[in-house]
Amino acid sequence: MTQEAKKEITNIASYMQEVGTRARAASRQLAATSTGLKDAALLAIAEDLDVNRDILMRENRKDLEAGRAKGLDDALLDRLELTADRIDTMIEGLQQIASLPDPIGEIFDMNYMPSGIQVGRMRVPLGVVGIIYESRPNVTADAAALCLKSGNATVLRGGSEAFWSNQAIAASIRVGLEKTGLPGDAVQVVETTDRTAVGAMITMPESIDVIIPRGGKGLIERISADARVPVIKHLHGVCHVYIDDQADHDKAFAIAVNAKTQRYGTCNTMETLLVAENVAAEILPELAAAYADKGVELRGCEKIAALIDCNPATEEDWDEEYLAPILSVRIVADLAGAMEHIARHGSGHTESIVTENFTRARRFLTEVDSSSVMVNASTRFADGFEYGLGAEIGISTDKFHARGPVGLEGLTSVKFIVLGDGHIRT
Amino acid sequence: MTQEAKKEITNIASYMQEVGTRARAASRQLAATSTGLKDAALLAIAEDLDVNRDILMRENRKDLEAGRAKGLDDALLDRLELTADRIDTMIEGLQQIASLPDPIGEIFDMNYMPSGIQVGRMRVPLGVVGIIYESRPNVTADAAALCLKSGNATVLRGGSEAFWSNQAIAASIRVGLEKTGLPGDAVQVVETTDRTAVGAMITMPESIDVIIPRGGKGLIERISADARVPVIKHLHGVCHVYIDDQADHDKAFAIAVNAKTQRYGTCNTMETLLVAENVAAEILPELAAAYADKGVELRGCEKIAALIDCNPATEEDWDEEYLAPILSVRIVADLAGAMEHIARHGSGHTESIVTENFTRARRFLTEVDSSSVMVNASTRFADGFEYGLGAEIGISTDKFHARGPVGLEGLTSVKFIVLGDGHIRT
Repeated sequence: MTQEAKKEITNIASYMQEVGTRARAASRQLAATSTGLKDAALLAIAEDLDVNRDILMRENRKDLEAGRAKGLDDALLDRLELTADRIDTMIEGLQQIASLPDPIGEIFDMNYMPSGIQVGRMRVPLGVVGIIYESRPNVTADAAALCLKSGNATVLRGGSEAFWSNQAIAASIRVGLEKTGLPGDAVQVVETTDRTAVGAMITMPESIDVIIPRGGKGLIERISADARVPVIKHLHGVCHVYIDDQADHDKAFAIAVNAKTQRYGTCNTMETLLVAENVAAEILPELAAAYADKGVELRGCEKIAALIDCNPATEEDWDEEYLAPILSVRIVADLAGAMEHIARHGSGHTESIVTENFTRARRFLTEVDSSSVMVNASTRFADGFEYGLGAEIGISTDKFHARGPVGLEGLTSVKFIVLGDGHIRT
Repeated sequence: MTQEAKKEITNIASYMQEVGTRARAASRQLAATSTGLKDAALLAIAEDLDVNRDILMRENRKDLEAGRAKGLDDALLDRLELTADRIDTMIEGLQQIASLPDPIGEIFDMNYMPSGIQVGRMRVPLGVVGIIYESRPNVTADAAALCLKSGNATVLRGGSEAFWSNQAIAASIRVGLEKTGLPGDAVQVVETTDRTAVGAMITMPESIDVIIPRGGKGLIERISADARVPVIKHLHGVCHVYIDDQADHDKAFAIAVNAKTQRYGTCNTMETLLVAENVAAEILPELAAAYADKGVELRGCEKIAALIDCNPATEEDWDEEYLAPILSVRIVADLAGAMEHIARHGSGHTESIVTENFTRARRFLTEVDSSSVMVNASTRFADGFEYGLGAEIGISTDKFHARGPVGLEGLTSVKFIVLGDGHIRT
């Protein structure tokens, strides 16, 4: 791919139509491809990336130079960079996905019906998955691999700042696919940085079955608003830990510190700590000291301010996803008060209760309407790998189709299968 | 409810906002309601309908008279009518749904992870379900009951021609809910025939989690095009039976006749018969005679016309959902030819192969991309009751979330639950 090729596409709409048509055709072939062939293709892609490390790094340098010239900030440039270590990780990711069980073709719930037919369900691919993502080029390989393993064709549209890196990865993917005898169009990386390509992708239900946007809340809201295709979306995580008055003190302390401070920038980080009134005076001073040690700013309700040194929380704080060393803290009367706060201010991502009380734990699990609900565990566990999904293509904060961390199964559908022996309906 | 009340609503947008807000509040209460209470409410609704048969039939007469005055055709008037039998069926439907197992709260896939946490999934309601439907008033009770059983609040918008019937049923539903101590707003039937109410319903994702339209293809396409909320949609059924050259002759005959003639107007009725070239001369004359007996018009490809008496099929016939005693018939070379025809012309609803060949049956099951794929069985089995779902709120021709007949499970979501003992992430 040369700079010229990037500019050759003049009619984006018809180009995207062609991409979609090719993806649809490839998806039909992929749906009938054996597990062994899909895994062989994943390994062949990994090998081609390994062999072409120099090209990958050279193309990545083009992106980095263009990024510096455009004045991208250091954090963005860091995410954009393909180091030797990151290429290793990308290759290992492909190998790991090859080693996962294939979800496709699984038959379950097969039972005889009174009419004599046998009815069951078979897991099948969704078809064509569109991925729209921002700067990190490793997403190109990760997302393509998950879609390929689950029998889906993919149309990937990466950020313009990673254009050359993504095209280089795409070239290796195509080589790996074709070496194995799979259609090269099974994974297509859009070859233009024109923004109208995104608009086309999200409005072609005849060619694309689902869109997965990966990026900031703004990107995802824009895509969801305009999409004519289902979107698996992850908006934001305003996660809560509630320390009940029957909590084990040590567990509460460990979880409240871990959920906030193990990493600040992740969506499963606790943003608001709720504490039962009865134990606030006992547990908060010790916690406040631990947070102070880590440099976490506390923003508390009025009752909190009477117990520990903190800044006052405003009404907006309860809805805030800080993604930073800031924590809002509120005293609530009891479990009901905690659940009321979560229902009003939570984003439906992940909430945890710390309690030794069986009945309250059971109620919290049942009644809290979030994609992950926990008892006596840190919210930081809400993650595809920690949940044993093997890999994660994203986290869904929707309830429809997939909820919470989305692994291979989230990229599948199920159809009914019926076996008879000449059965007719009477 | 009086004629005056019907006209009182002046600001539809704000009325629908209120309906949505009440539904959302009721859904939170319903999600935590026990199976026993939900079942009691269903039985109380059934009882109230039984007690108020006179009112139901009186209100229904208002709709029938208005319909006659508007010049509705006989078929529509028939669907609109609430006879004593139909009220019986409605009541039995409620009782039957009360007797089904509750899908909510089911915990599955619970396993220990290497970190020591236990991770599993819990089935939960979707939240608020919006149903938009046409003339048959029994849908009001059926759909409300399925949503209630699965812990969802419902907003129902029936056809204007059934307005008074639907309001009368809604009154019984409210009585049954409130008698049992459940929120009356758990089921709301929109109290206006203004069409802007539909536009509002399908664009309020903050209040409604999913829309299920029930009606003609035109209605469903309009709603899908404008919805800002996920839609479980059933477009149409162009269903196929393929008679393989290794088919058992008797089974092929029975299935081909049953799939077409058992009922003509249903979406799982066969619309196109595909016959392998090698057996066409053997099986088609006998089949043609059977179809002639039933008054089914045959439209055949050129090769067919050489074997039996039929009208010529045009290219449009292959995409047609006749819903009538008309059948298009085509000769294909083999299994591959049949699957190629289905991929091009099918609507992804239901297809069946008749064969004694194991390998071909296995391939058909795997590769045909339809919501129901069958071997040696009539397409007419594609139905929630026949599949043992207990009931059916619709059939989805989508792949996202729910596919094929949608029972209680299709009205649910799953969340992750995590149990720990003070576990933190390291």
